[in-house]
Amino acid sequence: MSGASSASPAEQILAHHPPQDIAAQYETVRSFSEKLCEPLETEDYVVQTMPDVSPTRWHLAHTTWFFETFVLAAADTAYKPHHPAFAELFNSYYNAVGPQFPRPQRGHLTRPTVKQVFAYRQHVDEQMRRLMADPDRCRAAGLDAVIGIGLHHEQQHQELMLTDLKHVFAQNPLAPVYRQRDVRRQTDPARLRWASYAEGLRQIGFDGDGFCYDNELPRHRAFVEGYDLATRLVTNGEFIEFIKDGGYQRHEHWLSEGWSTVLERGWQAPLYWQQRDGTWWNFTLSGLRPINPAEPVCHVSYYEADAYARWAGCRLPTEAEWEHASAGPRLDGAFVDDACYHPQPAVREPDDANPRQMFGDVWEWTSSSYAPYPGYRAPEGAIGEYNGKFMCSQYVLRGGSCATSRSHIRPTYRNFFYPADRWQFTGIRLAR
Amino acid sequence: MSGASSASPAEQILAHHPPQDIAAQYETVRSFSEKLCEPLETEDYVVQTMPDVSPTRWHLAHTTWFFETFVLAAADTAYKPHHPAFAELFNSYYNAVGPQFPRPQRGHLTRPTVKQVFAYRQHVDEQMRRLMADPDRCRAAGLDAVIGIGLHHEQQHQELMLTDLKHVFAQNPLAPVYRQRDVRRQTDPARLRWASYAEGLRQIGFDGDGFCYDNELPRHRAFVEGYDLATRLVTNGEFIEFIKDGGYQRHEHWLSEGWSTVLERGWQAPLYWQQRDGTWWNFTLSGLRPINPAEPVCHVSYYEADAYARWAGCRLPTEAEWEHASAGPRLDGAFVDDACYHPQPAVREPDDANPRQMFGDVWEWTSSSYAPYPGYRAPEGAIGEYNGKFMCSQYVLRGGSCATSRSHIRPTYRNFFYPADRWQFTGIRLAR
Amino acid sequence: MSGASSASPAEQILAHHPPQDIAAQYETVRSFSEKLCEPLETEDYVVQTMPDVSPTRWHLAHTTWFFETFVLAAADTAYKPHHPAFAELFNSYYNAVGPQFPRPQRGHLTRPTVKQVFAYRQHVDEQMRRLMADPDRCRAAGLDAVIGIGLHHEQQHQELMLTDLKHVFAQNPLAPVYRQRDVRRQTDPARLRWASYAEGLRQIGFDGDGFCYDNELPRHRAFVEGYDLATRLVTNGEFIEFIKDGGYQRHEHWLSEGWSTVLERGWQAPLYWQQRDGTWWNFTLSGLRPINPAEPVCHVSYYEADAYARWAGCRLPTEAEWEHASAGPRLDGAFVDDACYHPQPAVREPDDANPRQMFGDVWEWTSSSYAPYPGYRAPEGAIGEYNGKFMCSQYVLRGGSCATSRSHIRPTYRNFFYPADRWQFTGIRLAR
Amino acid sequence: MSGASSASPAEQILAHHPPQDIAAQYETVRSFSEKLCEPLETEDYVVQTMPDVSPTRWHLAHTTWFFETFVLAAADTAYKPHHPAFAELFNSYYNAVGPQFPRPQRGHLTRPTVKQVFAYRQHVDEQMRRLMADPDRCRAAGLDAVIGIGLHHEQQHQELMLTDLKHVFAQNPLAPVYRQRDVRRQTDPARLRWASYAEGLRQIGFDGDGFCYDNELPRHRAFVEGYDLATRLVTNGEFIEFIKDGGYQRHEHWLSEGWSTVLERGWQAPLYWQQRDGTWWNFTLSGLRPINPAEPVCHVSYYEADAYARWAGCRLPTEAEWEHASAGPRLDGAFVDDACYHPQPAVREPDDANPRQMFGDVWEWTSSSYAPYPGYRAPEGAIGEYNGKFMCSQYVLRGGSCATSRSHIRPTYRNFFYPADRWQFTGIRLAR
Repeated sequence: MSGASSASPAEQILAHHPPQDIAAQYETVRSFSEKLCEPLETEDYVVQTMPDVSPTRWHLAHTTWFFETFVLAAADTAYKPHHPAFAELFNSYYNAVGPQFPRPQRGHLTRPTVKQVFAYRQHVDEQMRRLMADPDRCRAAGLDAVIGIGLHHEQQHQELMLTDLKHVFAQNPLAPVYRQRDVRRQTDPARLRWASYAEGLRQIGFDGDGFCYDNELPRHRAFVEGYDLATRLVTNGEFIEFIKDGGYQRHEHWLSEGWSTVLERGWQAPLYWQQRDGTWWNFTLSGLRPINPAEPVCHVSYYEADAYARWAGCRLPTEAEWEHASAGPRLDGAFVDDACYHPQPAVREPDDANPRQMFGDVWEWTSSSYAPYPGYRAPEGAIGEYNGKFMCSQYVLRGGSCATSRSHIRPTYRNFFYPADRWQFTGIRLAR
Repeated sequence: MSGASSASPAEQILAHHPPQDIAAQYETVRSFSEKLCEPLETEDYVVQTMPDVSPTRWHLAHTTWFFETFVLAAADTAYKPHHPAFAELFNSYYNAVGPQFPRPQRGHLTRPTVKQVFAYRQHVDEQMRRLMADPDRCRAAGLDAVIGIGLHHEQQHQELMLTDLKHVFAQNPLAPVYRQRDVRRQTDPARLRWASYAEGLRQIGFDGDGFCYDNELPRHRAFVEGYDLATRLVTNGEFIEFIKDGGYQRHEHWLSEGWSTVLERGWQAPLYWQQRDGTWWNFTLSGLRPINPAEPVCHVSYYEADAYARWAGCRLPTEAEWEHASAGPRLDGAFVDDACYHPQPAVREPDDANPRQMFGDVWEWTSSSYAPYPGYRAPEGAIGEYNGKFMCSQYVLRGGSCATSRSHIRPTYRNFFYPADRWQFTGIRLAR
Repeated sequence: MSGASSASPAEQILAHHPPQDIAAQYETVRSFSEKLCEPLETEDYVVQTMPDVSPTRWHLAHTTWFFETFVLAAADTAYKPHHPAFAELFNSYYNAVGPQFPRPQRGHLTRPTVKQVFAYRQHVDEQMRRLMADPDRCRAAGLDAVIGIGLHHEQQHQELMLTDLKHVFAQNPLAPVYRQRDVRRQTDPARLRWASYAEGLRQIGFDGDGFCYDNELPRHRAFVEGYDLATRLVTNGEFIEFIKDGGYQRHEHWLSEGWSTVLERGWQAPLYWQQRDGTWWNFTLSGLRPINPAEPVCHVSYYEADAYARWAGCRLPTEAEWEHASAGPRLDGAFVDDACYHPQPAVREPDDANPRQMFGDVWEWTSSSYAPYPGYRAPEGAIGEYNGKFMCSQYVLRGGSCATSRSHIRPTYRNFFYPADRWQFTGIRLAR
Repeated sequence: MSGASSASPAEQILAHHPPQDIAAQYETVRSFSEKLCEPLETEDYVVQTMPDVSPTRWHLAHTTWFFETFVLAAADTAYKPHHPAFAELFNSYYNAVGPQFPRPQRGHLTRPTVKQVFAYRQHVDEQMRRLMADPDRCRAAGLDAVIGIGLHHEQQHQELMLTDLKHVFAQNPLAPVYRQRDVRRQTDPARLRWASYAEGLRQIGFDGDGFCYDNELPRHRAFVEGYDLATRLVTNGEFIEFIKDGGYQRHEHWLSEGWSTVLERGWQAPLYWQQRDGTWWNFTLSGLRPINPAEPVCHVSYYEADAYARWAGCRLPTEAEWEHASAGPRLDGAFVDDACYHPQPAVREPDDANPRQMFGDVWEWTSSSYAPYPGYRAPEGAIGEYNGKFMCSQYVLRGGSCATSRSHIRPTYRNFFYPADRWQFTGIRLAR
């Protein structure tokens, strides 16, 4: 949640987003959530296959609750919630707002029904439209800024809707298809080259126009030694070499925690991979498909990313290294906007010295533990729970994925997951 | 599954059920499963709230798979299953048939959809009708008997559909209502009296016409000392006295295992009870209601039943005692056929010496561990897994409940659950 | 704990045990506990390898606490305990006496030291001798009976000391030896024959002179159908045949709970067995030794006993069958008195129709769930917790083992363990 | 394990430690391990109260195994281990050396006995003395460096012996005393003041003479913003204010993981604290004592340290901030050499601007995740497993504690534990 330093999130966003713009963005973002649901059956909205996964129904309602709670109720103290029980059912983790229905049991609920959740969305959307129709009132109360946060928040949940659904479908022997997509034919990856960066004191953190979360602030200095960064992501083909070389059997490549995890969970390959008659297949949102060696490897944990890098004689980049290098490349790659829902092979040869695939395709694990930037302070109140309280034991990922909206990502964007997590579109870029 | 001694289940049933009869029963039983689903939303079919609970969708498909596997495929070796994956998805525990999708993850599946499951039912029903239209073929192959088992099997799952749904709905703060029913006004229970039975060598087990499961056979002798049996079930009002007297806080009433369970799970009352402003309420299939003191106490574990009996200076009956006493009373009580889905208070005064409420209302815990009768042998093949392999660590319950079909129950019927189980309609009858 | 019916435990024992006798028994039993400790190092007294196992130190102190609490403190209300903390540390499960140090953490304590525990024993022994020197006082207060219980109680713990130590030593790659013993050379078992018993109404339960526990009372009638009982125990050699025939891989032999346990725990053989270069070895209190095929199979769970019996086309006996058959045979076999600490092969040929090995060697699993006899009532007060509260979910074993004192066992003796338990000397006798 | 960059650990140490020195250090360090055991009973050496804790016996043997494996066996390929099974029993986590007896079961072993472990130490010490008597041979083979590592390694285990024993004794209702020590009378803490440091590019990591571990290398630059550091540690008295203010009940102070941990484990105070009649006591190695408000708070997790800092409107220092500030203060404080085994109050008033209590007393949590320094490479072979593979999910602590040897600590020393760990002497210094 934006914020920190001098300018409040509200002020930051207000400076650059005229209210009409926000109202239009609201329609765009909100309708995209519903568009993502088009291929679903009612049953698909209900299920939770592990505590990290939430039912689609829950995502749709929770993002709506966010607007209802932090905008509508804030705008009008007499606001009457759409349903009195939703405050508890659809609060994710905001202790300051009130108690929460237990996360691991979200999949135990059958009501409100999908239809009722869509009605809830419609109800809140109508209230929101009425509110946004009065730009002065929004601006005066600082609500524009909160609406901006709510829209980026919904984009985050759009990504989770896809990754959670993928996890749900992957448990089913029927291997349901979310959307059938053509396979990119290219199976020959671009050559791995190295982009070099000199040592120096770098500016890290957000400083541009537009929106950012509070965890990207304040902009500050960090000294970075000289380093090389791979010009593309590690591919499936390369990762298969690691497997063939006994990667999952040789302790010496692994962090101690990683090795314990490999033994306890019996990991032999990335999540969603399976071997059939000597060939590797993986489960995708387009169903079960033979693995394309040119595609970026995906659904690996931090442990696997680190072990692969060590095996390759390299290491993972720090987030400062990654961010410094990301200033050059264009913000292109496979995003959710492209509707392929799967990372894509790198183009054959880079036409300049910049690394490719920095944005979209897969989130790139960095070696940086998720921590506050020097001088960081979480905003006051419930909104301060958005990011700050999670700054412990997780690792930073950068660049977005094929499930991220193009308008959601930026070079300073910090995503974070636990080192054992694999259900996001997470991959590997080497440094040395 | 019936069987044992001299006559095979097939032979037993064939003797008394002319095929036309079976075809009619088939329609009755199968359509009742679907009738029970009428109040449901699509989402309600999907969820599993604990490993013991199965989604409604699964019950509907599993009972269908039973006919497909044990009748259609047995009748015609060229039979092609409706869907190749259903054999694994809808096999409950028949190792002889093949592998089973893990039970605790039945709620992780969103496909086949509810609509597809109903289509599966329709497909199998059509095949079954075609088969049953040729009585000679059925009789010759012994399929009539298996169809009979399949129908009783489906009735068991109809009961589970209701108890599983109750568990699902009870987790939801919205407290969904399955079916709204009027409350019986009577709050003054019949007086507790005792029916006395002399000692003697008794015949135990099934010996009549019609269907029985294999675990009711063979009929055999058991010596039973003289005993008294309460003429009605323990009521909510009586159980509240136990609670008020510190029943859940005083170790001396409890079996050691029961006391550990009370402490570990924090039990303070039967399942589905809650206290609000000093009044007890319970969750029913008609929603949350104040507790009627005259109704039989329900959703208690064996531990609670035993502790209550001990507190009351009595004990639970053995199954032999129960069965001997059940010869007298008429087979009446609240059944699923009555569509109240909740146990009912006993009529004021018994007009004869027979105990009341022996059938329907609540399953009655006996003090008998579920064990094979002397001379019992499980049938050969997969059908032998129906009952025999569960004869360990469970306790026998008798008499059926308000979720049981009247045509499903009989005096010799042996139900069985683990002593900590509470989600069935289980109650208490005292003996001494 | 004796009791029930007409005569109280105190009265029962008093009738037959003149006080001088008890004082002598006291010395015999108490000193035997210490004799069993002779081969131990100090470190061996301290360790707990699973919740069921208690450190030797604890057994020595707990049995002493029993006399201190139920005799010395009962005899003299001014009695001052040896140490105020011992009441909590060495109370096993008597809720009526007070709180208990958590059982799974008994191995977390290093104090009182072994030396202090022996001093505690000595202190209590001196007080006990002083008390027993006044037979009239003992008799008047009914303390003789309680002393009798305390001595049988200590004999039970002597058996546990050995089985618990065996478990402790077995976890150690150094395979410590408790006591080196010669191996019986005989490797050719007696032929398996069957003793036949006619149907009839049998008297079950204790009725003789001398001591019995409350769970053996009251004597009552049970109808038993005609049956055959194997004349000797199942041998290692026979059990190896079961293993070779895929016994642990074929679900059809197993109870459902047993099969789950086999899969979850990866059982492939009885506890303490290991295969080395194609030969089976087992860990014994004399160290690791090649398995003697003529010895009774040992350290099997109820599940394995039941599966073996099913595989062999037989079944386990009920406790009534076992007890009826036990009237004939002499009470001989390998006991702890014989100091071999391991079951012994059956003598070649029975010289009469009686079954052999009914007593000593291994506890024999029966198919009977541990339940109160008709008319059973637990004694009042703490002593009532001895047996009654455990009558749930366990199975009865009969006959004693090579770790049982000869003077401790009798035909009506009921031991009980959970069906998955294997660390006792438990074996199999077939019935049909 | 020293190493990295240009100079190998061997070379680094060899440069400054003439072999005679090492032989003398060997005697000093080894005998100190045994001196720490003087107050122990045999039983105290055996027990393990949680997986993190190892029995004293194990520490004594493991440190010996370290010399046997990495020095004696390396020096002489014909070296015959003292006992063939010790390689597995006393290997902690060196996968490259071979398999390890499972860590959580170290407390399941009663053999080798304490006496045998001391004999093992004596045997290896004699071999080591013989080897060190030939300085040229040691130097040529680089063994001097490894011996140096082995000695620092043993010092680390000396600290663990004390903290593990404290955990063991604390579980015992008898509250055993390790060593009786006088209580420091002072209860009035020094005033909390702030030392200020300007921003700048700082040199971080080891660069002096003498020994360091590999994780302190290579020395490198880090940019540090201006900051203040508290001149003393947070006291018990201050922490009691936090508790009184509802610190453990108010989610807003806590990291999300910390709050979950508080709820799950029911934390209400630091480890070893208990409240009796409104007064706080804590368990120390001198037994149970009333809490001295002037002493540094101790046995807090990272979560508690972070929550306290947040409540106080401050934060924890980064390790770079701590290290930069540590250049000034003298290396004094309470160490294990002082034999008080408990942190001590700060002297009343600082006589200069330097922070006090930077060394000894308690390990100070920093906000820095334990990660490799830029350019870090773990040494080759088994010794490379010493530090590198643990650089994940843990947090760095600085400065040593009252259980650390004065000769073991230095400003660049990096200790690391998981954020929930509390059994070390861990405390809090504020930054802002």
